[in-house]
Amino acid sequence: MPQYKAPLRDMKFLMNDVFDYPRHYAGLSSGENATPDIVEAILNECGRFCEEELSPLYQIGDEEGCKLENGEVTTPKGFKEAYNQYVMGGWQGLSAPEEFGGQGLPASMGLFKQEMMGTANWSFAMYPGLSLGAMNTIYLHGSEEQKQTYLVPLTEGRWGGTMCLTEPQCGTDLGQVKTKAEPQKDGSYKLTGTKIFISSGDHDLTENIVHIVLARLPGAPAGTRGISLFIVPKFLPTEDGGVGERNGVNCGSLEKKMGIKASATCVMNFDDATGYLIGPENEGLECMFTFMNTARIGTAIQGVGPAELSYQWALEYAKDRRSMRALSGKKEPDQVADSLIHHADVRRMLLTQKAIAEGGRAMLYYAAKTADHMVEAHTTNDEKAVKKHDDKLGFLTPILKGFLTELGNEAANLGMQVFGGHGYIREHGMEQIARDTRIATLYEGTTGIQALDLLGRKVLLMTQGGAVREFTLKVANFARKHLTNRTLRPMAVELLKLTAQWNLLTVRVMLSARKDRDVVSAAAYDFLMYSGYVSMAYMWLRQAAVATDKLENGGDESEAFYQTKISTAEFYYERLLPRAQSHATSMLSPTRNLMQIEAENLAFTG
Amino acid sequence: MPQYKAPLRDMKFLMNDVFDYPRHYAGLSSGENATPDIVEAILNECGRFCEEELSPLYQIGDEEGCKLENGEVTTPKGFKEAYNQYVMGGWQGLSAPEEFGGQGLPASMGLFKQEMMGTANWSFAMYPGLSLGAMNTIYLHGSEEQKQTYLVPLTEGRWGGTMCLTEPQCGTDLGQVKTKAEPQKDGSYKLTGTKIFISSGDHDLTENIVHIVLARLPGAPAGTRGISLFIVPKFLPTEDGGVGERNGVNCGSLEKKMGIKASATCVMNFDDATGYLIGPENEGLECMFTFMNTARIGTAIQGVGPAELSYQWALEYAKDRRSMRALSGKKEPDQVADSLIHHADVRRMLLTQKAIAEGGRAMLYYAAKTADHMVEAHTTNDEKAVKKHDDKLGFLTPILKGFLTELGNEAANLGMQVFGGHGYIREHGMEQIARDTRIATLYEGTTGIQALDLLGRKVLLMTQGGAVREFTLKVANFARKHLTNRTLRPMAVELLKLTAQWNLLTVRVMLSARKDRDVVSAAAYDFLMYSGYVSMAYMWLRQAAVATDKLENGGDESEAFYQTKISTAEFYYERLLPRAQSHATSMLSPTRNLMQIEAENLAFTG
Repeated sequence: MPQYKAPLRDMKFLMNDVFDYPRHYAGLSSGENATPDIVEAILNECGRFCEEELSPLYQIGDEEGCKLENGEVTTPKGFKEAYNQYVMGGWQGLSAPEEFGGQGLPASMGLFKQEMMGTANWSFAMYPGLSLGAMNTIYLHGSEEQKQTYLVPLTEGRWGGTMCLTEPQCGTDLGQVKTKAEPQKDGSYKLTGTKIFISSGDHDLTENIVHIVLARLPGAPAGTRGISLFIVPKFLPTEDGGVGERNGVNCGSLEKKMGIKASATCVMNFDDATGYLIGPENEGLECMFTFMNTARIGTAIQGVGPAELSYQWALEYAKDRRSMRALSGKKEPDQVADSLIHHADVRRMLLTQKAIAEGGRAMLYYAAKTADHMVEAHTTNDEKAVKKHDDKLGFLTPILKGFLTELGNEAANLGMQVFGGHGYIREHGMEQIARDTRIATLYEGTTGIQALDLLGRKVLLMTQGGAVREFTLKVANFARKHLTNRTLRPMAVELLKLTAQWNLLTVRVMLSARKDRDVVSAAAYDFLMYSGYVSMAYMWLRQAAVATDKLENGGDESEAFYQTKISTAEFYYERLLPRAQSHATSMLSPTRNLMQIEAENLAFTG
Repeated sequence: MPQYKAPLRDMKFLMNDVFDYPRHYAGLSSGENATPDIVEAILNECGRFCEEELSPLYQIGDEEGCKLENGEVTTPKGFKEAYNQYVMGGWQGLSAPEEFGGQGLPASMGLFKQEMMGTANWSFAMYPGLSLGAMNTIYLHGSEEQKQTYLVPLTEGRWGGTMCLTEPQCGTDLGQVKTKAEPQKDGSYKLTGTKIFISSGDHDLTENIVHIVLARLPGAPAGTRGISLFIVPKFLPTEDGGVGERNGVNCGSLEKKMGIKASATCVMNFDDATGYLIGPENEGLECMFTFMNTARIGTAIQGVGPAELSYQWALEYAKDRRSMRALSGKKEPDQVADSLIHHADVRRMLLTQKAIAEGGRAMLYYAAKTADHMVEAHTTNDEKAVKKHDDKLGFLTPILKGFLTELGNEAANLGMQVFGGHGYIREHGMEQIARDTRIATLYEGTTGIQALDLLGRKVLLMTQGGAVREFTLKVANFARKHLTNRTLRPMAVELLKLTAQWNLLTVRVMLSARKDRDVVSAAAYDFLMYSGYVSMAYMWLRQAAVATDKLENGGDESEAFYQTKISTAEFYYERLLPRAQSHATSMLSPTRNLMQIEAENLAFTG
């Protein structure tokens, strides 16, 4: 069974050596208390909590799942106790404003925490994760009274939160939302409708649940411009901040899913449920999508987590299990056979996992700095800065979410593959990782939607390619600096070529799209994946550059660590990065090959 | 829930138009009764059986799974009834020799039947599939008495069969097998040991189960040259062909698996079980692996099946579900949104599935002709012909099994992706297809093992690249013939280039491997995938060539069918085939990037 070990060594490398978080935090108002000592202590303690409390519940959660009995959802054995510890540790408020009881630390600290928790126990991490979404929405759009009422218990973790968007007829296309909100004399609303796929919609971890709900006011315009946002608490709050009357919102059923079975995915029925408008009428979608970029970094994590967890366990197995002899000669002559780790093809799989986990983590730590700046700009009401950082994040997040979750699936499946037939057997836990991970490319915007957001919106519509030009300029400048180093040169040369190619591809797609609108949708997936491979290549060069520098300056006790970083970077450039070229070719192929078959001719029977 | 529709139109196209099975069958002694009319009637009837009897049990099988109670395994509700119909239809003996009660039809007919059954209900198809393995082994290596005793009830399907190879300490590396066989005075043996992952090890479908077991005689040499093969029946046969005393072989437990839950995967305990030697002492592995190539075509099917099934259902959903507007303008202005089928990115996923299903099926029909020739050569004891066809098949089968099962997984996951979040919900059945399919790259030799078999054994060791030269010569000749056709030229040109590149890659890998033995294992996976993409490209050109010819000769009521074939071929060449190039690049990259990291430096904690 996979036992999580927090990758603290790698995290410290990224924070201290690659991205210089100490200096970054020193420049943030929220960074005042984030001194290196405190940061290290917090991450260590979070790691311990994940290893000792959350990881042991991983498999139990899958076996037991959640239960709906008498209209109430219960979580698997041990979840409530672990959640109580989570609340007592003050973890929910780590990056939340101090005025509502949070610790006021930078947003990035919350993301690092989320990575560890999500890796140790994906399902468990869903509960506090959804609460964060509700907290952000109320913080940004709630009235002063709403903030006072809801943010304190949410920040403590005493109350939980959800985001109620999807309905049976629509997920991606929220303009089709039908749930109705009828205004009442007292200024509140009565909500009626059905929401599906509501993570943490009901559970036994908190004393109240605060639903953030998309619904339509009477006479609202059709489509996306007629949707408003409401707070609908499970129990109406009392004057003194306690829990009062039960509201008309109920879990109708629990979805039976492929994985993340300990995460309660609810059908939620709103039946004249009392709700409170949050933000302006008919601007619910815009409100919902503020901070979406930050939230989506949270889902990008879900590509890194399974790669890390599956790698850790597959590596143990590969060292332990003996089969056949290495092609280059017996490695363990006194044993009946050599360990799997001596077979090149097994190393190919393991290193793919490792390159994805560590390359993806670097992408996350890179983007998290921008998230910090954006939150800082929000706090100081610097709208120009908000826009600047949001634009930057807006370009990175679809790449992170789309690309990393696709690769997370690959990594999880490679972990099963290292186990051979045993990977298919539940007790080893490897197949659970693959099942859990499978949700990541589907929720919070499918890969296709991320791809359209990246290419159609962020790259073409909003910046006419400028987002790519700006990012690649930075990447190319970095690569150029390392052209003279013997170790780094081959990677730097390759990366430079790719930055030029990325711009060229963008221009070519842009020109084609002017003549043929289908080009954007036809090219989007390959453009996303291409962008991901190049971005990850940048992250690997950055890591290799630091490692090379450390080794050249010598005398460090972490020599092996740095050497491995360089070797993994070489693996990435030589064995994974070539895939970018097949995406480049496919991307430019004509839309004809996708669109020319009439729908009724896609299948012939009889 | 996925409802299977037998792809009879495509099957007829491959049989009659692309591969000219009527002429092929006319040249086989087993083809005497396989006239076009009879073949069509049999395939139609098999399709009906699969659609009406097996497909409805697909989801039930997953929900119920198998049960072990009081030492006996029971299959899910409806399985026994369906199996009885299977027996009554005489399906098990379709390609079995008439002297043992079979219908004596060509082996390929059995494979086409297997494809339909495995697609409609993977778990169900495992039971007769394993019996076939036992039948083949006894047919080839059994004594006359053993044949008389076992082959008749196995051919009827009254008895089932298994292959007992894997033990807890070894799967791939069968030289580590420990199960012991002690000779008895009466010429029989007593077997003791534990076998795991035994598909159909115990169940309630047949009155007896015939286990084919690998075990060691006392004093046998260590490793693979000391393993013998035994027949161990669940019930000892009586003189009159009935079922006698219960033997000492029992199902100790059922594995809990990710998927194929209605297939009983058993831990089998042999406790002084009576067994009978089959084939020569210590040559058990060789006996086991005769006909392995034919058997592995059976597992290659398991790449085609899920692609077909998942495609069928995803296509229905994509026509039905409405979300957003097509980028090229409203397609269904009177509806709230356009169907998914109008989005280019959704078509990319669907066409990938379709290209895999139909391209894979073509590979199967192509290889099946060679399987027919090999069986024919066996029947007539033409050893030279056996070797010739076995060599040819030996080159094709690892490509088919390794490549098609990898792509089958991709296709099944794309089907989920088309469903968005609904793909993750069990009731839609799409995630079941993905879970079931996941076994295919793990059992019957993992992808890594297929890749080593292809590159290390079939290409380098046995033929020094000759296998590739021979195959590509045929492919290139075919491509050259179509260079002048306007529709086919771009594909033919590309395919010609690839045949040259394939040979070049083979030579380069061969030369590198002389200096560095790890090259074979390091390059094997990419070599396999590259070979797969090129082979499938050949199949798509063959299909497109026939379709073009039909269209040019005009007047056929299947115009739309042929046009779709050409369009799908174009899609394959332009959007999937470019992947071959990334495999070519990775394949040639140095082994250093895989081997240079010391095992203990693959992870750093703390």
